[in-house]
Amino acid sequence: MSLQIEATIATFAGKLHKIVHESSAVGGQMKFNLFLPAQTSTHKVPLLYYLAGLTCTGDNGAEKGGLLCPAAQHGIAIVFPDTSPRGAQIAGEDDSWDFGTGAGFYLNATKAPWSTNYRMEDYVVNELPKLLEQQFGKEIDMSRQSLFGHSMGGHGALSLFLRYPNKYKSVSAFAPISNPSECPWGEKAFSGYLASKEEWAEHDATELIKKYDGPTPEILIDVGRGDQFYQQKQLLPENFSDASLASKYANKVNLRIHDAYDHSYYFVATFAVDHIEHHAKYLN
Amino acid sequence: MSLQIEATIATFAGKLHKIVHESSAVGGQMKFNLFLPAQTSTHKVPLLYYLAGLTCTGDNGAEKGGLLCPAAQHGIAIVFPDTSPRGAQIAGEDDSWDFGTGAGFYLNATKAPWSTNYRMEDYVVNELPKLLEQQFGKEIDMSRQSLFGHSMGGHGALSLFLRYPNKYKSVSAFAPISNPSECPWGEKAFSGYLASKEEWAEHDATELIKKYDGPTPEILIDVGRGDQFYQQKQLLPENFSDASLASKYANKVNLRIHDAYDHSYYFVATFAVDHIEHHAKYLN
Repeated sequence: MSLQIEATIATFAGKLHKIVHESSAVGGQMKFNLFLPAQTSTHKVPLLYYLAGLTCTGDNGAEKGGLLCPAAQHGIAIVFPDTSPRGAQIAGEDDSWDFGTGAGFYLNATKAPWSTNYRMEDYVVNELPKLLEQQFGKEIDMSRQSLFGHSMGGHGALSLFLRYPNKYKSVSAFAPISNPSECPWGEKAFSGYLASKEEWAEHDATELIKKYDGPTPEILIDVGRGDQFYQQKQLLPENFSDASLASKYANKVNLRIHDAYDHSYYFVATFAVDHIEHHAKYLN
Repeated sequence: MSLQIEATIATFAGKLHKIVHESSAVGGQMKFNLFLPAQTSTHKVPLLYYLAGLTCTGDNGAEKGGLLCPAAQHGIAIVFPDTSPRGAQIAGEDDSWDFGTGAGFYLNATKAPWSTNYRMEDYVVNELPKLLEQQFGKEIDMSRQSLFGHSMGGHGALSLFLRYPNKYKSVSAFAPISNPSECPWGEKAFSGYLASKEEWAEHDATELIKKYDGPTPEILIDVGRGDQFYQQKQLLPENFSDASLASKYANKVNLRIHDAYDHSYYFVATFAVDHIEHHAKYLN
């Protein structure tokens, strides 16, 4: 299985590749965007994974996130994966915007019928990096990888970082779902994808941080007080921050709650530079 | 007639207002976006008009243009108007993506049935500024206005700047249609909207610059050599640049042709900072 570059778009003196490939992890065709900064012409650069939120594809962050400009300045590649398998043909897959298609939650489902295809954790953590190394091993230094994301993807970033100590250099999140076991979106996803409730804690960032025992680069989290999903208690970032205080991460979670900002990409773009600079500290 | 703010989104420490209103210029409801930077809380700021291209609305530039970040830094407001009347109910209005809806070309049509509603020049030059002054006169200094735009909107910016000497402080364009009388898009639009061929020169930037006799702030134009529409000779920026040499604008048109870049918003975003800095020189 190899990556097919469908299009290459020049941007910020680098390249955005639009890529399609067959995925064995999710059993079907997947698409993603890969930004390679100009620095790849002279040396390998580190890689950031941008994990998008509910209903999104790999396009939203690339087009609207304001992320490429600072990534180009700091010489960081960014990969923008999709948010779920597409067209797995599971009954009910397209019934909800917050479950199934566009809502894979970056975990491996253990409950039928989802467990065959909904394996986004395996896709992001194992398959995608292998494919990138095969095809872009001269441009990307796979020993320097970090994660960030938005909303569901913010949780994906936090939970995968905590589940795989030493794999990623740093993590940050925009308006992340932070304690899925305790919010409607997370309860729906976890009860749908996971076979037993005992598994929930293994995928919930707020539970994971309590037992985490790896390196502790600062975690940057931005949330807007005007975010309707924050107000509806879907995000619960304080639960994550509070849990960190009794953990190895005590005082190293930088949770910033900003007045007014909402859940949109206008919010993500506003703090894009801060997040790229955060990761540049650990990646460069 | 007044402006109704449908939503206000916090971004880059400022505000993006999503506005709807009845327009007498085009005889129907119009929508636009208005970005007000944080500096409006202490003093009036200048105003940039971002005119979008074929098929776009006021959303594309606001979401994907990368324009708000530098505008926030320089304390410049940006208004993002729509590209045509919507729902004028003219037969054939929605048949083409390059004529009618989404393709108003920022001129006043003189040919029936378009002449009643397709009056985007009057809308952008007269009605919109009046409405903005009424409602945002404390935030925006209407004596400092400039124009920029993309593709069809790049031509809108160039042609309106040249048609109204002294009205705008500066102008720039991303991949503009530059000589519509000589390209398929322009021929279709001008023959459709204008009653006689004698009127074409009054709306063609390459013709207008030959006779222009106003102030001559540098004109910045960026085009990508990988732009399919540049390659198909829809844009013809060299015609504009060449015509300027025998005009009052001699050596003050800065046409930059960049390798590789295409016609997309990835191109616009790449040069967004340069364009905002260009206008800041004249507006601040």
